[in-house]
Amino acid sequence: MDENILGLVAGAITSVAMLPQLIKVLKEKDVKDLSLVMILTLISGLSLWVWYGFLKDELPIILSNAFAVLVNICLLISYIIYRKK
Amino acid sequence: MDENILGLVAGAITSVAMLPQLIKVLKEKDVKDLSLVMILTLISGLSLWVWYGFLKDELPIILSNAFAVLVNICLLISYIIYRKK
Repeated sequence: MDENILGLVAGAITSVAMLPQLIKVLKEKDVKDLSLVMILTLISGLSLWVWYGFLKDELPIILSNAFAVLVNICLLISYIIYRKK
Repeated sequence: MDENILGLVAGAITSVAMLPQLIKVLKEKDVKDLSLVMILTLISGLSLWVWYGFLKDELPIILSNAFAVLVNICLLISYIIYRKK
């Protein structure tokens, strides 16, 4: 398989990976078993990838990681809202 | 900041991101709020990154993603063990 297509597919899959977790949290309104450290670590690491994408001027890296940061920020907000329950 | 150092730091952070989640699951033996689809999607996407790393012959990509695959496989096994509770 062509390397660049493989990279794009891999990036797309890992970018949307947290989406089912966010949907589950929004449905069940329960975050007891989620790790806050995981969410914060992901937001930090993925933000660095966006920065890396800007430095390297690689739009696929910027877009896929920016999307993942967005999903994780939504997950963080949900965590703050639902952790009291 | 140097691009390559930034890439290595970003890769290291996103690689260890799921570790606190795994530790939390092993401690609390409860996975009710975790999304199985998230775990399976991550294992698929990260495995493709390892494959990409082999094609591009980039050891940091291979190592960081292989480590993340390992953590997520442990998380999957924990999920299977603890979901019945």
